[in-house]
Amino acid sequence: MSASLGLPRLTQARAPALHSVAARDEWGHAQTLSIPAERALTLYLDKQELVTLMTLGAQPEWLVLGYLRNQRLIQNRAQVESITVDWDVGAAAVKTYAGVADWQERTAHRVVTTGCGQGSVFGDLMADLDRLRLPPAPPLTQAALYALVNAMRLQESTYKSAGSVHGCALFAGERLLVFVEDVGRHNAVDAIAGWMWLQPEPLDGADKVFYTTGRLTSEMVIKAAQMGVPVLVSRSGITAMGQELAQRLGLCTVVRATHKRFLCTSAHERIVWQPELAGLPPAG
Amino acid sequence: MSASLGLPRLTQARAPALHSVAARDEWGHAQTLSIPAERALTLYLDKQELVTLMTLGAQPEWLVLGYLRNQRLIQNRAQVESITVDWDVGAAAVKTYAGVADWQERTAHRVVTTGCGQGSVFGDLMADLDRLRLPPAPPLTQAALYALVNAMRLQESTYKSAGSVHGCALFAGERLLVFVEDVGRHNAVDAIAGWMWLQPEPLDGADKVFYTTGRLTSEMVIKAAQMGVPVLVSRSGITAMGQELAQRLGLCTVVRATHKRFLCTSAHERIVWQPELAGLPPAG
Repeated sequence: MSASLGLPRLTQARAPALHSVAARDEWGHAQTLSIPAERALTLYLDKQELVTLMTLGAQPEWLVLGYLRNQRLIQNRAQVESITVDWDVGAAAVKTYAGVADWQERTAHRVVTTGCGQGSVFGDLMADLDRLRLPPAPPLTQAALYALVNAMRLQESTYKSAGSVHGCALFAGERLLVFVEDVGRHNAVDAIAGWMWLQPEPLDGADKVFYTTGRLTSEMVIKAAQMGVPVLVSRSGITAMGQELAQRLGLCTVVRATHKRFLCTSAHERIVWQPELAGLPPAG
Repeated sequence: MSASLGLPRLTQARAPALHSVAARDEWGHAQTLSIPAERALTLYLDKQELVTLMTLGAQPEWLVLGYLRNQRLIQNRAQVESITVDWDVGAAAVKTYAGVADWQERTAHRVVTTGCGQGSVFGDLMADLDRLRLPPAPPLTQAALYALVNAMRLQESTYKSAGSVHGCALFAGERLLVFVEDVGRHNAVDAIAGWMWLQPEPLDGADKVFYTTGRLTSEMVIKAAQMGVPVLVSRSGITAMGQELAQRLGLCTVVRATHKRFLCTSAHERIVWQPELAGLPPAG
């Protein structure tokens, strides 16, 4: 029995990430501006329209699989026979082996989550939450935290060339496994969830760290927990509901992580503190 | 006949915008961090559940009215008898005079918009777009543009004290009319759309300028156009679909607006260029 049993068949649809736009600067001079692409991708689940996602389009198959996973519409990659993305018509056709029971009913309840959050997390946002249990997992050393923040700083990106995108990354300790950008941060995290399921052996989140350029909203915390990842690092801040959920789940949240500085707002026992690496505290 | 005829009755539900959170810094020291509040507000339209919004909660009645307006579920404030917000149960009850016909059908199609975009803009995102006509409107002088960017810089805000929120503002020339922050930028723009309808005489957008701290996504452009506002200014960038729609609509978009610098990416004829105000171009 193959280790990669149950891998869906995928297209490898690619599309350019950048567009050039003619602009005028403050002197009235013509300038060329690079901006990120943004495409509508309509997802059909067994030939029925499910949702339209607006995406940069870098990794549409990962995105589609991760979307279905994070919406809890599928529980296992082996349910999915194939994902076929066609940018000419902006469509992603998902074929499952046995169908998804009751998905119309399960997607009927709409929640518009915060900010860069997934538009509509189907089903009750809080449902299943108390069934989630994060593993004890190996702790993250402060040295590894610094190394991963530095790795993100050095990462080449669409953001650096064009701005207006969010980036997410998955780390094993300080080792970068995958980095995804999208015009919607919810897409970037979904694409990583899809990628984890597309490895020869589905990747376990327990010993991983999830990094995002954006805020830690309730939705980011829920998705990290669903992916089994116990540590979430952001160079930005955290919202009140993100904080509340992280504490409830025992998920370690690290915010405002830049260079040597950071704030851990929950589950600080998951970090091996090495304050000697932080340099001298400011005088006074 | 009163000028304010047709104003809905509103509660004035308020809730604190900031929470304090215990955090640990990089030296392992205890720190107190201010973070923005984030509340679930479930909207009931004539006693039927419509959607749950995650919000900072600063102006929930404006938000609810603007949400219904921007989703095109109501066409006129006079349709709404009352909006009753109760934070104890996280509910907003909207009572209309005559009901909203077919809203279940009209909200059936889901689009997950980009990034900080409104989670699900009900109905076809592009529907009605070609019916939108932006007025010629008085042009914006470069001097007024500089003044409004400066006004935003000086504005006291939750963002300054806690981060992790988006701000939107409506200007008449350089005069700030209203400023709203929310954990979701889509909420901030909806709240302003609601506020415009809650003035004694519903406010016309034609001679106004809309400012946002966030990216100009397709959704921001569509909402500005729906509000009749022909100029959209951001300190951030623009996505490809935002750009495409702005050009189609003849809506003036100004991005990366900071101090004296900016880039106008569409409808530059709506700006009175005063390059002499920009200072000297960089040498070379």
